[in-house]
Amino acid sequence: MPPADRYVSKAPLRVRFAETDMMGIVHHAAYIVYFEEGRSHFSREVGAPYADLEEMGYSLAVAQVNARYAAPAVYDQALMVGCWVEKMGSRGITFGYEILGSDETVLVSGYTRHICVNRAGQVQRIPAAWLDKLTAGLDAAGGLV
Amino acid sequence: MPPADRYVSKAPLRVRFAETDMMGIVHHAAYIVYFEEGRSHFSREVGAPYADLEEMGYSLAVAQVNARYAAPAVYDQALMVGCWVEKMGSRGITFGYEILGSDETVLVSGYTRHICVNRAGQVQRIPAAWLDKLTAGLDAAGGLV
Amino acid sequence: MPPADRYVSKAPLRVRFAETDMMGIVHHAAYIVYFEEGRSHFSREVGAPYADLEEMGYSLAVAQVNARYAAPAVYDQALMVGCWVEKMGSRGITFGYEILGSDETVLVSGYTRHICVNRAGQVQRIPAAWLDKLTAGLDAAGGLV
Amino acid sequence: MPPADRYVSKAPLRVRFAETDMMGIVHHAAYIVYFEEGRSHFSREVGAPYADLEEMGYSLAVAQVNARYAAPAVYDQALMVGCWVEKMGSRGITFGYEILGSDETVLVSGYTRHICVNRAGQVQRIPAAWLDKLTAGLDAAGGLV
Repeated sequence: MPPADRYVSKAPLRVRFAETDMMGIVHHAAYIVYFEEGRSHFSREVGAPYADLEEMGYSLAVAQVNARYAAPAVYDQALMVGCWVEKMGSRGITFGYEILGSDETVLVSGYTRHICVNRAGQVQRIPAAWLDKLTAGLDAAGGLV
Repeated sequence: MPPADRYVSKAPLRVRFAETDMMGIVHHAAYIVYFEEGRSHFSREVGAPYADLEEMGYSLAVAQVNARYAAPAVYDQALMVGCWVEKMGSRGITFGYEILGSDETVLVSGYTRHICVNRAGQVQRIPAAWLDKLTAGLDAAGGLV
Repeated sequence: MPPADRYVSKAPLRVRFAETDMMGIVHHAAYIVYFEEGRSHFSREVGAPYADLEEMGYSLAVAQVNARYAAPAVYDQALMVGCWVEKMGSRGITFGYEILGSDETVLVSGYTRHICVNRAGQVQRIPAAWLDKLTAGLDAAGGLV
Repeated sequence: MPPADRYVSKAPLRVRFAETDMMGIVHHAAYIVYFEEGRSHFSREVGAPYADLEEMGYSLAVAQVNARYAAPAVYDQALMVGCWVEKMGSRGITFGYEILGSDETVLVSGYTRHICVNRAGQVQRIPAAWLDKLTAGLDAAGGLV
């Protein structure tokens, strides 16, 4: 569950047929992509699109992924990917996630840790030009980071 | 690192173009599929193919995935997916993984926790017919579970 | 281009990071999944969800895929997947597609041919219970099949 | 079927669990990735790795994909991806494919058309440094292009 003071963005998505596996449910690796979709949505929503960071020559390289699977999703199911900033540092961010079914049941939860790197893969401070937008967006949304 | 007394299976694989992303490296979700490939290989190698378990009407549903990313892999790179049994219970298994580059550098490490379920998704004991083969195979390979 | 008398459903989607490759653009196999997303959307929109057909024990197995790539899409780009019925038979359907950028440029076009099969993989007539809904939906939308 | 005078490279692969879908068979988009794997293997085998072309700053952008699906593959199945040069031009190549089961049955066949582009996406002649290796490799293998 997100801490009470966090801004949680909610990305709606619908399960694609290609994301199912022979068990008849969504393959576990697909949720890792849903997490990514959740944080893309989060970044757009608070006004600091991840695409902008990429254009500046930086990436938030994934250092760790953790996912817990509570219940399966199926083809065509409407899901909601909740995403928030779990922890923020000068060189990295940890995002938290909850993937919910239509009845608000938590199907999958988890977090991803990211390190800011430049094109050469060297660790960098998150550029102020992007971080300031993120912070301003979160302030406006009334959510602490 | 795998505990010293474990049998570690090594699945060779080569990075596919489709598994790269716009950062020019392997996308982080692809390694979760590599983990899966590693445990498929492990199960075949010890003589208890996962495909057999599926045919018996059981699955090892994924309950948790954890991956730590130390260094990136690139297109066409030859990798080795080390896989071992981290923990074994009557209703579940935890597998450990290390994905190595050609110079034995650990690029990604992690684990996945699994629960045995039947076609209806109900938790079940791992069927003896499959588990016995797994145990026998590990004994023969000189590796404890 | 869709024939003038066809109903064209338009599924909006946004390119995911995982769908890009090291060329910095969307990987060509991802559009095949976009096509699938387009026909899922089409079927929901005309009131004959593909998920219903699956529940009845039938599938529209893919017999052929053809895609022509005119221009690349990039991460975070908003796309529209146009989908229509190109040809309809008693045992199969051919869907046509156009994937458009925000300025209506056609990035990718193509078609997929499908054969109706049951769970055993045997060719079947498309079940009337589903086909009638599809036809009624297309009539209501003013589009011929 | 490949023309009689062509060199056909054969890439072995095994179906991954993640590549299956809820129909219990390999998802049709996965074969497009198998085609890609087939031509990667082809290029390595004849001594002109595609990775080298990428390093030189060129890509063989996909202009068209065509695949015909005759029979399904399943999880853990051992497949062989036959790949050959169907047509060669100064600015593009067409590859042909046949994906075979262990009994040599053709499961999927198809072709992909490629155009040589530079990093800016502009059409270019295929660089001689790479093309010469490809031609020499095919000569050595006794297969015409």
